Amino acid sequence: MSAGETDEPALRLIDSEQDAFRRALATDLDGFLQAKRELLTSISTDSLELLNAIARLTQGGKKLRALLNYWGWRGAGGIPGADEAVRAGTALELFQAAALIHDDIIDRSDTRRGSPSVHRQFLLLHQESGWKLNSERFGNAAAILAGDMCLSFSEELFTSIGERAAFGGDARSIFNRMRTEVMAGQYLDLLEEAAGPVRPADQAAERAWNILRYKSAKYSTEHPLALGGALAGASDGLLQGYSSFSLPLGEAFQLRDDVLGVFGDPARTGKPAGDDLREGKRTVLIVSALESGNSSQRAEITQSLGDDAIDDRTIGRLRTIIEDTGALAYVEELIAQYGGAAFTALEKLPVDEVSRTALAGLGRAAVARTV
Amino acid sequence: MSAGETDEPALRLIDSEQDAFRRALATDLDGFLQAKRELLTSISTDSLELLNAIARLTQGGKKLRALLNYWGWRGAGGIPGADEAVRAGTALELFQAAALIHDDIIDRSDTRRGSPSVHRQFLLLHQESGWKLNSERFGNAAAILAGDMCLSFSEELFTSIGERAAFGGDARSIFNRMRTEVMAGQYLDLLEEAAGPVRPADQAAERAWNILRYKSAKYSTEHPLALGGALAGASDGLLQGYSSFSLPLGEAFQLRDDVLGVFGDPARTGKPAGDDLREGKRTVLIVSALESGNSSQRAEITQSLGDDAIDDRTIGRLRTIIEDTGALAYVEELIAQYGGAAFTALEKLPVDEVSRTALAGLGRAAVARTV
Repeated sequence: MSAGETDEPALRLIDSEQDAFRRALATDLDGFLQAKRELLTSISTDSLELLNAIARLTQGGKKLRALLNYWGWRGAGGIPGADEAVRAGTALELFQAAALIHDDIIDRSDTRRGSPSVHRQFLLLHQESGWKLNSERFGNAAAILAGDMCLSFSEELFTSIGERAAFGGDARSIFNRMRTEVMAGQYLDLLEEAAGPVRPADQAAERAWNILRYKSAKYSTEHPLALGGALAGASDGLLQGYSSFSLPLGEAFQLRDDVLGVFGDPARTGKPAGDDLREGKRTVLIVSALESGNSSQRAEITQSLGDDAIDDRTIGRLRTIIEDTGALAYVEELIAQYGGAAFTALEKLPVDEVSRTALAGLGRAAVARTV
Repeated sequence: MSAGETDEPALRLIDSEQDAFRRALATDLDGFLQAKRELLTSISTDSLELLNAIARLTQGGKKLRALLNYWGWRGAGGIPGADEAVRAGTALELFQAAALIHDDIIDRSDTRRGSPSVHRQFLLLHQESGWKLNSERFGNAAAILAGDMCLSFSEELFTSIGERAAFGGDARSIFNRMRTEVMAGQYLDLLEEAAGPVRPADQAAERAWNILRYKSAKYSTEHPLALGGALAGASDGLLQGYSSFSLPLGEAFQLRDDVLGVFGDPARTGKPAGDDLREGKRTVLIVSALESGNSSQRAEITQSLGDDAIDDRTIGRLRTIIEDTGALAYVEELIAQYGGAAFTALEKLPVDEVSRTALAGLGRAAVARTV
């Protein structure tokens, strides 16, 4: 039976196992944060604001990385519901939260998961409390610290898995590599916003793909799946198989994100319309529009890209241009192509059918961006 | 023979052991950063700027934390020059670098260790390269990422010590607690700048002491010494003895820093004159001046505290007021008192005479702030 043709009872079993995992994840996170709450209370109740911000943020989200880690674990023969897999999932979700907190400062994003971003929460706290000095600076500074704390928590949790996550093993190597790669990818993304306009245009696509891979694809899908696998003792062969599925999946996932960053509905994305345009992201979508557009289209895009004060009318205008150049259709085709490659690789993976079906479900949701 | 009366040959032996440790520290850091250089090169040579910023920053500094960790290790019977102690020292120095990178963004400090701070380096890179968008924003964003990477590196190094640093042991607990406490302390410091003016003045001293302990004293001296001890298997009794020495020492160290933050010579501190005044720090020194000053002195301090554009004349004027209120003399007395308590505790420590003498040397340097 191939992925996608699974029978109802099998799907219900997967849903129920996944729900149990989500509950275990929430319980694990609550327990950890509760212990930290006690530590921070012993320092000063004022410092609890940092923890509250982390707790609020981690309540949301679709837990894509934690779930991929879980099925990576299961596919490599890990025991269903095992503590190690839950703990690794919690560590991944806290790492993601740390990255989002700092990313939102960097991208000046006011909303995240449908609520004010962490730096906005602290800015609002400052304003509402009638404190002195600058609200925006306070918000950013407090969010830098909240992100740092969250990053440390992530690592603390991962290490607490014990021997399987210890130095010298595959899981630790993946965890280390994931962190360095995603931070490098974030820098390349930031750099391209600033340096892209004055760098060789004929290498812009190559640079956009590099950013897409390191900032997102490897981090969002490849590393979490591999991490779960490595924790369960997956062979090198299985880890390679995981990559042939998860890397193209991650690429399709980020290409979908690029489309949503321009065309997405705020009600669904939890972010303002045209966010990528305002932030000046030079994604594969944007670079393709710049390459395929005529000189006046190119000039219009270039002029508004990275403009803080971009209005809805201009966003609408840029959307039309990006469609007219054929860039949107091209990226949709790439999404189908990379998604297809991922599913072909999934069929060949030497994993049990439950894990394969679960991974197919996660893969479909990732590409459609319902996860 | 008590500390301070040590003979010349003994001091030379200590100097030579300490020099060997410093060299081992530099070699260990170089090797680690070289491996990361290769990883980042495989991603994109553009991302090497993050590594270069970290490498430049970690070349400087007096390595107080690494040295305290080393003598904590030696005093607990650790083998001289052992890899574990070196590695822990490298991890501590990278943690300190990460904290400084983010601290300098938060405090808007343009210089660090006599050179441009990391966010300033990236701002200058942006300006010199003729890139687009905002230089200051680019500088801050890149420095957030450089600090994140440095924080991850610190943890990666600490974990690579192996079993002695693994979950469940004292060393790991101290490492975890250190990170959470210092981040909470940094937040309290930031909060006090903003909220201090509208909070109960009669609790301002208590809040200042709490910040001093968590942001600095515990982190700069107590935790590094304990970490080295724990790695060498120190008993709870010895760790308690370490604290009775290192906590008052750290308090004296930070009180000295508070004095230098107002009265320090930029050529010696590597920071602009009157930095604490410009940043609006409500240190024990400042709070004591506010408490002891008359209403016009209090008003003058309050008016200029946290003023970005504070000039040298005003700094000079505030220095005079802080002296006139008796706050400077009071803090100098506290430094002598806490320093004295530290040295009394050091005399009683059940450690070998070499370690005791070395710790006395570090302690004197920390209080005089030559380390």
